[in-house]
Formats: sequence, structure tokens, C-alpha cells
Amino acid sequence: MATRLQSSLRLVARQTGATLARTSVWNRPVAWATRAAFSTNAPHLFAAPHGKVAFTADKYPHMRRNNVFKKLSEEDVTYFKSILAPSSITQASDDLETFNIDWLNKYRGQSKLVLKPSSTEQVSKILKYCNDHKLAVVPQGGNTGLVGGGVPVFDEIVVSMSNMNTIRTFDNVSGALVCDAGCILEVLDKYLEERGYLMPLDLGAKGSCHIGGNVSTNAGGLRLLRYGSLHGTVLGLEVVLPDGTILDNLSTLRKDNTGYDLKQLFIGAEGTLGMVTGVSILAPKRPKAINVALLGVDTFDQVQAAYKRSKNELSEILSAFEFWDRAAIKLVKEHLVAGANDPLESLHNFYVLIETSGSNKDHDDEKLNTYLEGLMGDEIVQDGVVAQDTTQIQNLWAIREGIPEACSKAGAVYKYDISMPVPVLYQAVEDMRARLVQSDAFGDGKLFTSVIGYGHVGDGNLHLNVAAENFTAEATALIEPYIFEWTAGHSGSISAEHGLGISKNNFLHYSKSASMIELMKQFKKMLDPNGIMNPYKYLPDK
Amino acid sequence: MATRLQSSLRLVARQTGATLARTSVWNRPVAWATRAAFSTNAPHLFAAPHGKVAFTADKYPHMRRNNVFKKLSEEDVTYFKSILAPSSITQASDDLETFNIDWLNKYRGQSKLVLKPSSTEQVSKILKYCNDHKLAVVPQGGNTGLVGGGVPVFDEIVVSMSNMNTIRTFDNVSGALVCDAGCILEVLDKYLEERGYLMPLDLGAKGSCHIGGNVSTNAGGLRLLRYGSLHGTVLGLEVVLPDGTILDNLSTLRKDNTGYDLKQLFIGAEGTLGMVTGVSILAPKRPKAINVALLGVDTFDQVQAAYKRSKNELSEILSAFEFWDRAAIKLVKEHLVAGANDPLESLHNFYVLIETSGSNKDHDDEKLNTYLEGLMGDEIVQDGVVAQDTTQIQNLWAIREGIPEACSKAGAVYKYDISMPVPVLYQAVEDMRARLVQSDAFGDGKLFTSVIGYGHVGDGNLHLNVAAENFTAEATALIEPYIFEWTAGHSGSISAEHGLGISKNNFLHYSKSASMIELMKQFKKMLDPNGIMNPYKYLPDK
Repeated sequence: MATRLQSSLRLVARQTGATLARTSVWNRPVAWATRAAFSTNAPHLFAAPHGKVAFTADKYPHMRRNNVFKKLSEEDVTYFKSILAPSSITQASDDLETFNIDWLNKYRGQSKLVLKPSSTEQVSKILKYCNDHKLAVVPQGGNTGLVGGGVPVFDEIVVSMSNMNTIRTFDNVSGALVCDAGCILEVLDKYLEERGYLMPLDLGAKGSCHIGGNVSTNAGGLRLLRYGSLHGTVLGLEVVLPDGTILDNLSTLRKDNTGYDLKQLFIGAEGTLGMVTGVSILAPKRPKAINVALLGVDTFDQVQAAYKRSKNELSEILSAFEFWDRAAIKLVKEHLVAGANDPLESLHNFYVLIETSGSNKDHDDEKLNTYLEGLMGDEIVQDGVVAQDTTQIQNLWAIREGIPEACSKAGAVYKYDISMPVPVLYQAVEDMRARLVQSDAFGDGKLFTSVIGYGHVGDGNLHLNVAAENFTAEATALIEPYIFEWTAGHSGSISAEHGLGISKNNFLHYSKSASMIELMKQFKKMLDPNGIMNPYKYLPDK
Repeated sequence: MATRLQSSLRLVARQTGATLARTSVWNRPVAWATRAAFSTNAPHLFAAPHGKVAFTADKYPHMRRNNVFKKLSEEDVTYFKSILAPSSITQASDDLETFNIDWLNKYRGQSKLVLKPSSTEQVSKILKYCNDHKLAVVPQGGNTGLVGGGVPVFDEIVVSMSNMNTIRTFDNVSGALVCDAGCILEVLDKYLEERGYLMPLDLGAKGSCHIGGNVSTNAGGLRLLRYGSLHGTVLGLEVVLPDGTILDNLSTLRKDNTGYDLKQLFIGAEGTLGMVTGVSILAPKRPKAINVALLGVDTFDQVQAAYKRSKNELSEILSAFEFWDRAAIKLVKEHLVAGANDPLESLHNFYVLIETSGSNKDHDDEKLNTYLEGLMGDEIVQDGVVAQDTTQIQNLWAIREGIPEACSKAGAVYKYDISMPVPVLYQAVEDMRARLVQSDAFGDGKLFTSVIGYGHVGDGNLHLNVAAENFTAEATALIEPYIFEWTAGHSGSISAEHGLGISKNNFLHYSKSASMIELMKQFKKMLDPNGIMNPYKYLPDK
């Protein structure tokens, strides 16, 4: 089988000259939606696709409203009305729904008030008032988070950044972009595209997520392999502290060694220390040439082998190395999410999506072809296609980006986002699957219907999704804390890029030592002594 | 003139085929020292090259020993002898000299005790004892810093990391290196070279500086343009807090979003919050092809034009874009530092060193040649050479890396390390020169002999060196706070990569707001309530 496909791939390579591709596959009369069309869907359109009831606070027996916090009164609303336009205040229960429920339809809060400030000064006044009156607050961006970090648990006031979406400045020489925290990632990327630059991060939720939310959750995404984390690309932040102090650190300098790098503490703090209102970020030059290849692979060992070679041979042009498994592609095919289809003829155990980005198309093609021919020659991959134009590139990406949506259509999805050394990356999926089978909890009519593995091989980051019939205590108990123990036992992190929110705060000790957690609590206490910022989340309850 | 050189350069390009070079220049019978030979010189060999007396604390009228700190007693030494080997304790005054005086011979402390722990546990015991007894401490790495941050001011105990130099682990798949803080940067790079990787930072002091010092000062250096800052490449740290607590955060994961990213606070904290004892860092694959070109350029506008084009045309293979001015090359020629010579025949106003690193030599050559031919064709550069082998690459780098040594031989050097938007980068040098000429302080027999500009164009980072006859209050007053005011007025940072130490702590307000500085003081107070860690430095006295 491998030989046959290998020959056919090679044959096409020979036929098309420099570029390796099975173009016939792309001529199928299928209506391919583009990646952009997929990603601009607002996240709340995806909410509750499986029709399950979301978790509310009463499902957490250990959760109690903290009565240190004041309950919202008419006087409070009157004050907010004195500083905000009427259109910036939401109180009607129907309108509150989208702010109270998260993308996964897993967490549902009970907030009675959403505020949408239009300026940093308004944010400062809101937080100062809330701090003075001990009103709890949830900062909210695009509400595309996956750990319940951006929605209330009880009656916290939601402060939404959706009205703060101005691009402040852009330096066309250095690539430094300064913007409001409420700017949508894709809008920023399109703005930069017109100027020859690109955002150094990219993720499936780009059409909805805010850059402020990206920073607050230290979002990783699809380009981290190439451009590094936000700890390296963010040049400066404007942050409002709980007491209303505005920390103006919107530097556009690439280098600045004047004092403690305070902004770093707010990157990934999930709004628990203050609200990010402005972001300065270094945009790289937009690559002139992009190639995307999709490969069918038999074993995870071969996925690893392909990855190791890509580091050597694609090196500086490698911009993504993603994988997913047979269970993932089956769900995508079954639920056929917008823009997702599979150009490979037969089903494979593993799929690898490789993206290269460079400044010279001929050079990139040559490197990629040499690399792919080597993989085929050594029988590391079974089949593969290379996109021939922008639409095909978008379509290949749409498969990868359609996986979360396909999973959410498969039932109530328990999502785990773990990182670990690459060699044991897929073992997590196999061990989880074996555990559920052994417990007789897997299959038609059982608690669980599917265990899916996909993620970023280059970052050692696995997205392990477990689709259940329902979110239940019984189902939860079978997979937690098992998965966290498994991760800790393999020197991994229980949250690679999604963060902690309310779904993982009490499992923090699996990844951080007692002294680290103690120090985190000290930082929280120092910056937010009343604990009003995003309570019940991030740090352990006890 | 430009035309003639342009033709000759083009001619050679045509003669040699793919590679553009004036090889004849390289055939001169000059004994070129290699870069490695230069950089392995221990820094103390360079100390006091101009024979000037270093500053001691009594030269700072505002400085007083803080009598909160206990003076060292025999009992203290007895305790340290109980936990350290005799060879790890230095008390003899001759031996103390190199630990008390900095690389520039500008700052001289009066420590009577140097401790060289061999383990994190020993560091923990030392700090706990010092904290309990209020003994002030200076952490010291390779002592190659340029702002007096690594040497004592009064009688602080020096804790040297020179005995902690073990490489702990290296992951050949991910490139994660874990090592003691006292490992020398060049040693680590050689270790990685044998395994196909490289350190993501490089600087002239690499033969002496410690990775722990690099992290503690957030060293930038020559490869930042390509691999980003240590805030992005450091994966984890092991830090001993002043009370002896060991924060074990030596993660080797590329992604880990479990709680506040505490390690970031210690990167660039100059040892004022604790001692870095272990470092985990992500090493990139070592490039298979390296090219280095040296260009002679007429104006700084042309330097900028060449830089902008390099971002477009060299893009992903660009790994350094350095510049220096006529004053710098004159000093290098005059003092002929080891390994530094100039292969360009005539003197130019500006020099640009461009390095490319990639995985395919042919591709890189083609990109570089196209780029250089474009520069010549548009008369942006006047002359240029491209290194033909590793030795020539090292020799071109030796010119750039020889500048600090050449400056130090020119007299007492006031060093400024500022960052700002690239367009005004060289104006800082011109304005300083004009100011000193106007003040009749410049020239033979005057206070100042030379104003030199060089640095990292790609990072907007200028090294402004002002060579004086002596370090005097009169000389200082002419250039400070002028240079800091100038920098603040041009949206710059008063310390791009060297840090604050004792030379810039009281100028911090030029780059950071009052609320930022206030918050920094709170962090310091929280983590080091007794203030024993590297006192008198970093944060403003008041």
C-alpha cells in the first residue's frame, strides 16, 4: 500500500515539476468553504451545538458565592450609568445570555450586568468603583476561551472589551503595532496584511477572539513554532489595576531593560491581576511564499520522524507542524464542518499538516519537495498532497481548524490541553482510550463516544478531547484527575495553552510546586487585595 | 567613487559565480585572530586597560552604607566554612580584587568575602543565613556587566556562581537545555554545536559571561534579531529566594500556561529578587549555512535603507544587522585589538555587518547576492565584501566585537546603551558630539577624545560610547542627564540591554512611569523584605 501511494506521489511530483501535488483530488465538485469563512463565525453560534445543559455553579458542590463580595444594587447601576453611555450597559436577561455562557456551553454564570467601556479611563473608573465597593468583576474578551475563565460563576459584573477596538499606531519600519485590547485578532491580521506584516499568532477563533484575551490567556496557537510565545512578541501593555491605577507600559521598543518586566506577569494571568486595555506587539514581515502539505501517516513514531526531519530540512521556513488522528478525521467527516474536507483518498491513522513560510517561493518549493520526497522514499508517510493555491491552503487548514467544532458536535466534550515531551505525546490518547474501554464506559450507548487526539507536534502540545453523552459527575470522575496524574507523571503541563480558568485551577499542583503556588498567591494578594478580579478561578480554592 | 566600487563588486560577483566577494582583500598576509580566540579572553584581563582609577563608593556623595546591614564577623565566616569547602571561600585581599572591580574598571567595591557555592542547596543555606542575619549579598556571574551591577558597592558578600557549571540535561528532539547558572555561554554553545544546536544568544563576552548572568541581566546581544529575547527562549528557571526558598521551575516544556509566569520576573532582575541557580533554555537548530557580509556605507539614511530591504529580501535567513561608525573603526585600527582588522580599502562613514543563517547554502547565497546587487545597483552601499569561509566570517565578526575593547583602550569610557525608533538612532551620536564640541570639551587635551556609535540596527539599539581622559564629575555632568533626557524625548529606553546596576538606577524615571516604579518597589519589598539582594542598585535610591 505504502509503495503504491509512494509511487503515485512521486509520479505527480515528476509530472508537475517543482511542485509536488495530486491536483486531481482538488477538482472534486465539493463546495469548499475558505478558512476565513470558517473563522469569522461568531463563537456563540457554535455554543451548545450538542444541546446539552451547561454546568452552572450549583453543579460544583464545593463552590459557594463569596459573601465578601457585595451584591449589585440600584445605586451601583446608577453610578455606572453616570460614566458610561446607555448603549454600553446591558441588563436585559436575554442579552446577558451570551456573556454568561461560554463557547463550549459548559459553564454558565448568573451575571445581571455587563459593562462595555470605550476607554481606558472608563475601565479605570469601573474597577476603582468595584474595588472600593467590593463588587466582583469578570473581564471578558471574545469569549472563546475553553476553560471557563471568561464567564462569571455567580453574579460577577462582566466588563466586556468589545467597545475598545481601535488600532492606535503602527510603525511600518519596526512592525510595532499598538491597539486596544478589544481588537479582534483577524481584524488586526487583515490590517497588517495590507501593510506587508502579519500577527505573530493565529488560532481557530481568530474571527472572534480579542488580542487582549489572547494576551491574558497567553494564547499559543498555530504559529508559535515559528514566532514564539507572546512573552517574546508582546512589547508592552497598558493595564488597569483593581484600584484603578493605569500602568502605561505600551512601549514599542524591541529592547528595554529598565526594571522588572512587569507586563510579563499580566500575560497569561487571565484577568486575575488587572485588566489589559492596550497591547503593543511586534509583527513580523508577512511571508511572500506559503506552502501547505497534508500527509497521511501510519504510526505516531512516523509522525515524530517526519517532525525531526522537518526541523533539519525545513528549518527556518517551517511555520507549523500539526497532527490529528483517525478519530478526529472521522468526526470531521461525520459532522462535515464548514470548509473541512479530506483530499486524501483513504483513511489514515494519523495526519500531518506542514506549513512553510518564506521569502522566496522557488527556494521554499525546493526545500519542501526534497523533504517530502525523502519522507516518501523512506516510507515514513503513506500519502500526501501539497496545496496549489491560496484556496487549497485555506481548505487544508480548514480540516485542522474544523476539529474543535466537529468534536463539539459529537457530544459534551471534555477538553484537555496538555504539553509534554514529544515522544510520549500520543501515548496520552492511547492510555485514555484503553482506560475507558477497560471501564466499559466507551462505545454506543456508553458514557463516552470518542477519544480524539490532535495538536501541535512542534510545541509538544496535545489536545485530548473526550466526547461524552453528557457532562456528568460519573463521566468526570473517570477521566479526572486521571489525566492530570498521567500528565504530571510524564513531566508535562496540565495546561499548555488554554489556561486554568475554573476547569483546572484546583489541579494546579500537578504542574507547579507548593512554593510556586504560594508565591502566586502572594502576587494576587498584593495586586488585588480584595480579590475582586475574576474570582473563583485560576488559583486553587484552598 | 560609488560607481567604481559598485562595478568592481559586481565584477567579482560575476567572476565568482554565485558568491559575491572581493577575495583578494582576504589574501593579505595579516595574522587574523579568530573570533573564538578573542572571545575566550577572560574579562579581567581587559580590566583597567587605560590605567585609570576606578570609581569607589566615596566618589558618590549620595551613597552611604546602609547600616541596617550587619558587618561581617568571624562567626559568620565560621558558619560559611561549615557549609562550604575551604576552596570555595575567598578572603585574601589579592584574590578579592577581581571580584570587587568591574570589567570597565569603573566600579570598585570593598567586599571582604567571596563565596562560591557548588550546589543550589548551598546557595539556599547562604541566602537564608544572610537574610536571617541581614548580611547584604551581591550575586556574581562572569563579571562582564557594564553597569556595575555585579560588583559590591561597600562590603556586601559576593556569591559567585563560578563553581556551579554543570550541564544537567539536553533533549535532542526539542532542543531544551538545562544547566547550572554558572555555565559559561561559549561552553554551552560548543556543547550544543556538537549536537547540531546553538545557543539563542551570542555576545562579545561569551567566553566569560555566565548563562545565569545573561538571564539576570536579560542580555540581548547579536542574535536577538533572529531568535528573540530571553523572555521568549528561557523555558524555566531555578531560583533561590532571599529566605532560602528554592523555586523549582526548570520546565523543559515549550508551552505551559499553569499560573503566573513567575520566572519572567527574575529575567532581567539583576539578582535583586533572588539568585538564579539553574536555567532551562530552548536551543534552535544550528544553521547549516552562514554568510557574513561587511559593507561600507556613506550615510545613516543608507544604513536604514539597507536594513529595510534586508527585512524584505533576507527575511527568514537574516540573523544579524549590525552597524558602527567611522569613529569606531578608527579606534579599532588604532588599538588593533585581537582579531580585528578591516578588509575594506578606504575609510567609510558607516559600516554594516550582515549575517544570514539558513539550512541551504545555495538558497542563502542567492538571496544574499540578489540583495547585495540591489544595494550596489541603487548606490545604497559604496563597497563590500562577503566572507568566503569560517575564518573570514570570524574575522569580520572580530571587527564588530573588537569595538568595546578598542573603546576601553581609548580612555575612560562612558557607555550608554539606548534603544529608540530606528530613524533617530544615529542622531543621538551626532547630537552628543555637537554638544561636546560646543562645550569646548572635545579634542586633544580636552575632557573627551572620542564619541563612538555602534549597535544593533534591527533592534533599534545604539551603543553610544564617550571616551574621556578620566572619569570625573565634570565630565559626567556634561553628558548626564543630557543623554537620558535626549532618550526620553525620543521615546527611547535608557537601557536597552545592559541593565541598570548602579550606573542607571537613579535615571529609571526617564523610561518608566511613577506607578510602574512604585509597583517595582512593591515587588522588591515582597520578595526581599530585608533588601539584602544586590543593594544600592537597580531601583532608585529614593
